[in-house]
Amino acid sequence: MEKRAKGRTLMSYAPDIKVVDCTLRDGGLVNDFFFTDEFAKDLYRANIKAGVDYMEFGYKASKELFDVKKFGKWKFCDDKDIRAIVGDNKTDMKISVMADVGRCDFKKDILNKKDSPIDMVRVATYINTIPAAVAMIEDCTKKGYETTVNIMAISKSNDVDIDAALELLCQSSVGTVYLVDSYGSLYPEQARRLADKYLEMANKYGKKVGIHAHNNQQLAFANTAEVVIMGVSYLDATVSGLGRGCGNCPSELLLGYLKNPKYNINPILRFIENHIVPLRESGLTWGYDVPYLLTGLLNQHPKTAIQFIKEKRTDYNDLYLELLDSF
Amino acid sequence: MEKRAKGRTLMSYAPDIKVVDCTLRDGGLVNDFFFTDEFAKDLYRANIKAGVDYMEFGYKASKELFDVKKFGKWKFCDDKDIRAIVGDNKTDMKISVMADVGRCDFKKDILNKKDSPIDMVRVATYINTIPAAVAMIEDCTKKGYETTVNIMAISKSNDVDIDAALELLCQSSVGTVYLVDSYGSLYPEQARRLADKYLEMANKYGKKVGIHAHNNQQLAFANTAEVVIMGVSYLDATVSGLGRGCGNCPSELLLGYLKNPKYNINPILRFIENHIVPLRESGLTWGYDVPYLLTGLLNQHPKTAIQFIKEKRTDYNDLYLELLDSF
Repeated sequence: MEKRAKGRTLMSYAPDIKVVDCTLRDGGLVNDFFFTDEFAKDLYRANIKAGVDYMEFGYKASKELFDVKKFGKWKFCDDKDIRAIVGDNKTDMKISVMADVGRCDFKKDILNKKDSPIDMVRVATYINTIPAAVAMIEDCTKKGYETTVNIMAISKSNDVDIDAALELLCQSSVGTVYLVDSYGSLYPEQARRLADKYLEMANKYGKKVGIHAHNNQQLAFANTAEVVIMGVSYLDATVSGLGRGCGNCPSELLLGYLKNPKYNINPILRFIENHIVPLRESGLTWGYDVPYLLTGLLNQHPKTAIQFIKEKRTDYNDLYLELLDSF
Repeated sequence: MEKRAKGRTLMSYAPDIKVVDCTLRDGGLVNDFFFTDEFAKDLYRANIKAGVDYMEFGYKASKELFDVKKFGKWKFCDDKDIRAIVGDNKTDMKISVMADVGRCDFKKDILNKKDSPIDMVRVATYINTIPAAVAMIEDCTKKGYETTVNIMAISKSNDVDIDAALELLCQSSVGTVYLVDSYGSLYPEQARRLADKYLEMANKYGKKVGIHAHNNQQLAFANTAEVVIMGVSYLDATVSGLGRGCGNCPSELLLGYLKNPKYNINPILRFIENHIVPLRESGLTWGYDVPYLLTGLLNQHPKTAIQFIKEKRTDYNDLYLELLDSF
């Protein structure tokens, strides 16, 4: 019944699957990247024990564009700060950072791979800045990095543009193209349709496909699990879904689902107990809530919902009417 | 790509869809059915305005087996108590109650339809008590009610038994057979496979199929949305997912998804603001949390997770090891 990659069943595992932990990076959007070193170190250790394939430390943001005093260090991910956590990272887990088109000084700030603890650079782009993304990809490839490209807000784009973008990107040196549901608006049948499109193009050019989902409609894990069946192999997750607004696909759900014997849920459960419970108790809020459902439903950026929750408003019906006004 | 009932697209609507609000019934499992009359009345009004097709008030539980002092009135659903909320219910919304095999005195407590405000009796059974369920169905049909049968804990049953149960039930006078994911353990591909089986048998005998999902793995809405495409038409939901443990498919997600023009999310948003926010503030807890994920993952009854949360424990890893012991 399902469109299913060869040999993938609910009982088996797919050796090509890579779990990418984005807790510090997407979670940093909740607390402006002010994580303690203990949090980062324990997360690093937990991810290694859990069999996670990549841990993303944060962004390589431009220090000319962003005030370093206003953000924690993982907004900028200096190599020395990563080394302070991972040393020489003599483990099987790789390190990634995200670099936004137009918001980083990649030529200067991203060193040659041989001089850096970073293994993979993930280039985040909107669909109208693909050529700039390609320039970044080629620069990073030349420097020796693995690369991915994450086309954000794809639910706002039309099929013709998506096809053209995928063709351009797959002709670059990028390793993996990500399906990103920035607004958490995709239903499983839409996620499958897009995954099908991405996989077809990726297979043609020998690329991998990844997914980064948001939980506005409680579909982040569902959409991730659905496209895994089809052959999507790079899977973004964050511990307890920590991430902007409604958050992401929770690592504990994903690791519980995947059958690859290398994955292990226990270290993540311990990390939740030791670090996520106190984080919630400290007043940090994220995760599914009605305002995020409403922006997801209307395929809008979550900023209005984030502000609504910050103001401790609960007049959900008024919010819905406001959102409809800007539909 | 999907197995899709004729004419169902994401843009269209299916006129045969019926939304069944179970907020008082499944939610009653969280607070022993102690809802205020104001809550019940406002929910009734909100459901009518939202276009909900059936509102389930609670259980018809035996007063000989259960102590009426220990539970609120919706555990027993006396006709007079329903009438106090709905009067003669001169609306398009129908009223349902649930009756558990072995835990009700249906012959005595369920009056003739012509003397009752109830329209539909939902018979809840385990797979090993199907003949008793059929006896209840026939009694209720004879009394003039619409009926459904809800085969609980289906994720613990094997295909041969499910086939036999479906055949027996579809040969009865029942109107709708429900796929019930009691433990929230079904992944979408499993929910689709079961829905396919239920629909095949139901179509053969001219019955409808319903779904009642739990949210242990954040899949209640996803599974519901997935089987809607295939032709499942009776859809259980509760406002904000209020229900035992991790709760159910949230009405606001479902009503946002369905395209039938009769459905309207606004009254539910208002109800959340006026009644669900205070209910949470009063200390009542339900909804997705790590312990429920773990029982769902291991296909177990949520009681261990409910107790764990009641004791305010957060040693999730120890809980997982305990659950594995009884796997």
